[in-house]
Amino acid sequence: MGKILRINAKEKTWEYQELPESLVGLGGRALTSKMVLDEVPADCHPLGCYNKLIFSPGILSGSPAANSGRLSAGAKSPLTNGIKESNSGGFISQKLAKLGIAALVVEDKPEDAGFCMVVINKQGVEILDASDYEGLGNYDLMEKLWAVYGKRTGVMTIGQAGEQCLKAASIHQADPKGRPGRAMGRGGLGAVMGSKKIKAIVVDDSGCDRIPLVDPEGFKAANKKWVKMLRDHPVTGQGLPGLGTAVLVNVINEAGALPTKNFRTGRFEHAADISGEKMVENIQARNGVVAEGCHPGCVIKCSQAYNDKNGEYLTSGFEYETLWAFGAHTTVKDLDQIAMMDRLCDDYGLDTIDTGVALGLAMEGGLIPWGDGDACIDLLKQVPQGTGFGKILGNGAAFTGDALGVDRIPVVKRQALPAYDPRSVKGVGVTYATTPMGADHTAGYGVTANILGVGGSVDPLKNDIQVELSKNLQIATAAIDAAGLCLFVAFAVLDNEEGVPLIVDMINAQYGLSLTPDDVIKLGISILENENEFNLKAGFTKIDDQLPEMFKEKFPPHDTQWTFSVEELQEAKNYNA
Amino acid sequence: MGKILRINAKEKTWEYQELPESLVGLGGRALTSKMVLDEVPADCHPLGCYNKLIFSPGILSGSPAANSGRLSAGAKSPLTNGIKESNSGGFISQKLAKLGIAALVVEDKPEDAGFCMVVINKQGVEILDASDYEGLGNYDLMEKLWAVYGKRTGVMTIGQAGEQCLKAASIHQADPKGRPGRAMGRGGLGAVMGSKKIKAIVVDDSGCDRIPLVDPEGFKAANKKWVKMLRDHPVTGQGLPGLGTAVLVNVINEAGALPTKNFRTGRFEHAADISGEKMVENIQARNGVVAEGCHPGCVIKCSQAYNDKNGEYLTSGFEYETLWAFGAHTTVKDLDQIAMMDRLCDDYGLDTIDTGVALGLAMEGGLIPWGDGDACIDLLKQVPQGTGFGKILGNGAAFTGDALGVDRIPVVKRQALPAYDPRSVKGVGVTYATTPMGADHTAGYGVTANILGVGGSVDPLKNDIQVELSKNLQIATAAIDAAGLCLFVAFAVLDNEEGVPLIVDMINAQYGLSLTPDDVIKLGISILENENEFNLKAGFTKIDDQLPEMFKEKFPPHDTQWTFSVEELQEAKNYNA
Repeated sequence: MGKILRINAKEKTWEYQELPESLVGLGGRALTSKMVLDEVPADCHPLGCYNKLIFSPGILSGSPAANSGRLSAGAKSPLTNGIKESNSGGFISQKLAKLGIAALVVEDKPEDAGFCMVVINKQGVEILDASDYEGLGNYDLMEKLWAVYGKRTGVMTIGQAGEQCLKAASIHQADPKGRPGRAMGRGGLGAVMGSKKIKAIVVDDSGCDRIPLVDPEGFKAANKKWVKMLRDHPVTGQGLPGLGTAVLVNVINEAGALPTKNFRTGRFEHAADISGEKMVENIQARNGVVAEGCHPGCVIKCSQAYNDKNGEYLTSGFEYETLWAFGAHTTVKDLDQIAMMDRLCDDYGLDTIDTGVALGLAMEGGLIPWGDGDACIDLLKQVPQGTGFGKILGNGAAFTGDALGVDRIPVVKRQALPAYDPRSVKGVGVTYATTPMGADHTAGYGVTANILGVGGSVDPLKNDIQVELSKNLQIATAAIDAAGLCLFVAFAVLDNEEGVPLIVDMINAQYGLSLTPDDVIKLGISILENENEFNLKAGFTKIDDQLPEMFKEKFPPHDTQWTFSVEELQEAKNYNA
Repeated sequence: MGKILRINAKEKTWEYQELPESLVGLGGRALTSKMVLDEVPADCHPLGCYNKLIFSPGILSGSPAANSGRLSAGAKSPLTNGIKESNSGGFISQKLAKLGIAALVVEDKPEDAGFCMVVINKQGVEILDASDYEGLGNYDLMEKLWAVYGKRTGVMTIGQAGEQCLKAASIHQADPKGRPGRAMGRGGLGAVMGSKKIKAIVVDDSGCDRIPLVDPEGFKAANKKWVKMLRDHPVTGQGLPGLGTAVLVNVINEAGALPTKNFRTGRFEHAADISGEKMVENIQARNGVVAEGCHPGCVIKCSQAYNDKNGEYLTSGFEYETLWAFGAHTTVKDLDQIAMMDRLCDDYGLDTIDTGVALGLAMEGGLIPWGDGDACIDLLKQVPQGTGFGKILGNGAAFTGDALGVDRIPVVKRQALPAYDPRSVKGVGVTYATTPMGADHTAGYGVTANILGVGGSVDPLKNDIQVELSKNLQIATAAIDAAGLCLFVAFAVLDNEEGVPLIVDMINAQYGLSLTPDDVIKLGISILENENEFNLKAGFTKIDDQLPEMFKEKFPPHDTQWTFSVEELQEAKNYNA
């Protein structure tokens, strides 16, 4: 495997280190979480000198494996105060892998200084003054960086939110068109990068060899089956390429689980106006792009390019959760306003889920009217200006609710709940409560068996089996995040007995190993155990593994309530049972 | 003992209940903490319908015992998310006692409604519309209430901060001149009152009999000795009446423990300009009042009336901690500017410690310049306006630091550290870390033996004995808070073997009991145990009993550091050892 590249943000120095024995074989989330546990004092201030920001390509990243281009970022989260892993597609993971870098670690922080940027290439590392780039949004910044370093480099940046160390700040990777539509969005890792005064990281793999494969023929054979499996599954082969994740708006609304007006009801009367179908209709009418990948080797292509009414590019990576947060949650029904909010978040470097939920809480707290998209956009535009309300909003949902004295704040571990009501998709509700990440649908996507009929079928309205479902999905997800695979492969893997063995076959062929599917499960469990150990040291208890009291309210149309006990939920963390 | 008066803020109903057996004999902090533990779900939202705001006069309140006029308020704190008791002097505790009310409990909250006020008298309770009073500061509000209800009523109000449910919001009692200089300041209890939409509580004891004393002669004899003891001690008989608590500015600065510029050094070059001596000089030159009591029966009289340059009343209850927070902490050196900030906090209903520390963090975060008193006043004036930065500041120090991405945030359990650096007054540092209240000097005032030579002498710079010192003071303080006695009696009590027996004699004479000093210690321990039990259920761990990492920095002039281990500190909670 690769080496560790350590960058000291205070001293402006760097060095390569061999990967110690204890970390060999790890990658992606497995490596970031283990290193955060080992190296970051759990009780440190997330924006202080003791926190570290760690990037790691997945185990399969850089190989020809389809959809293996995810990069993990890990640190102590300024949003949750617990451990955080957030990942996205883009160029960086494959380029780091080709440069032989298993982990890129940014340490310490300067006391008083302007922003720097880091350029990594085959020759070494440069830590450069970035004062010219300070104050730029991600769109401008990425364009400027590609102008200097070329369109074949991977770039990863923070916007004005990260510069201000706001808790909802994300880190963005340029997509294949150099746009910041792809974010390591959740948990405020952009603020950690900002605290270390790093505005951008450029990764240039020019002159690097391809990743060596111990058994190239075996790899090729497995990858061929892998690609076919992804293309044959209705979700990864048709639903996601056709409508992106926005396909879910109508599905979840129909299921009565689309949280509307800050989780008051499960159906939004204007759902059709913000649906994937409507999005594609607009894209086609305005000469946008329906299906794009976020990194080379993606066969799912869930991204898109959404143009405005004049046919000018507006945004991409326009996700279901974003449509929901700026739409049903706030009762804004204008898709173009929502697209503008998505664009602004990508530009400023803000997590769309936490920011959208925060806008709904600004409505709940009486700051702006329900359903007023223009007011949302005006408020959002205060973030780069650094106004008081800009700081409040940019610090996320829990912070915004607190600022305004709201008592209906949909967060777990201070991270905002995403687009599936936990009372009517109870499987994902168990994940929100119990994942070490804070409320996060991607940590164990119980929507599969609850709603989509993928990987079995579990009644979404009942408590039965949900804890076990969530636990197993959390374990599998952790392993997928370690492999560097896009989580969406799980739709196909859950419905296909060959799925996990194919992943194992590719890893074995790449590294000359003889792992079994059981080893993958063990890896997933070890990741979760490491993450929980960190959170325990940071002062988390089972009380933090709860949903807030607002979910005791009855939720129409099914009039469901959240009724899991503290003890029942703890079973979701009993990974070896 | 008295009864429980329950007010339902949603239904606008009230009822008297007998005190259950389990609560008989409790008062003040003993009663509020026990009732919060028993009745408030520890994991509830502090501003939600499940929290309760509980007021209780002390065990001796209403009796002729000198300095027994403290009222405790308890709830789950919106600032710390743990249990909170905050107390102040004023008229209310004695009047509630005379009305036979041991606990006044405000429950539930209205969903959408304007503010109400509560009038309690011998005939019963009125819950009245208070929309005419909405938006008023405490000065205007108290004046209007006395105009309606007479100057012999006790009034207790929230300002604009409490109305907005800000986490640093306090509850104010009118002092004998009808001014809001006395606050139940810490922990955001004003926000709890605001969440329940109660703007004011008026207590009228007209027509009530005196508190019955089982042994009037015994009581009189004990109280006579008690008064003499308080008058004879140099702190309670001379220091506090002479200069108020502001006497400490020069003392703590001399000791090298006056935290300056956000806890960077222990000596403030302009300490003399903000000292008690300077304050009294101004008071005398401007025809103010040097020594006033905050409630009938006070023999210490640590309050004052401070006039502006034109001889017009400006503020009262001008404490050392306030002088420090707005002064040395922010490096503002103009006493009149500091007095104005104190007045604004009293008027808006804000804790001066959390607000002053927040202003320093606004400087640390680059929002306003260090030492700029006008900028502080301008920022403070944004609180009643409800601007973004007003909301940030009014939510206290931790919130302000977080909003601005600051990593040097001096808080424990999210409550701001007061005016004694924990590295150079280690006894009070142990209290900051381990009291269930969050950083609070009044919870176990180790300054006594560390600096003042009261109750023994312990080197303030060394770790030795500090844990035991803090623990014993925490126990004694809890008992004093239960008795309804002003904490300042402790100076005399700690130096006089007759002190505790005299308190016991008065309680015994009032109620016909035969308690011993040991029973008082047991009461103190039981209070702390109840409070810790609540916090445990709320999700607190030993990690929350730490000082933040900024106190690892060396602190001039003594170059001290904070070096207690997690385990050493937990010994301060081993109350029965």
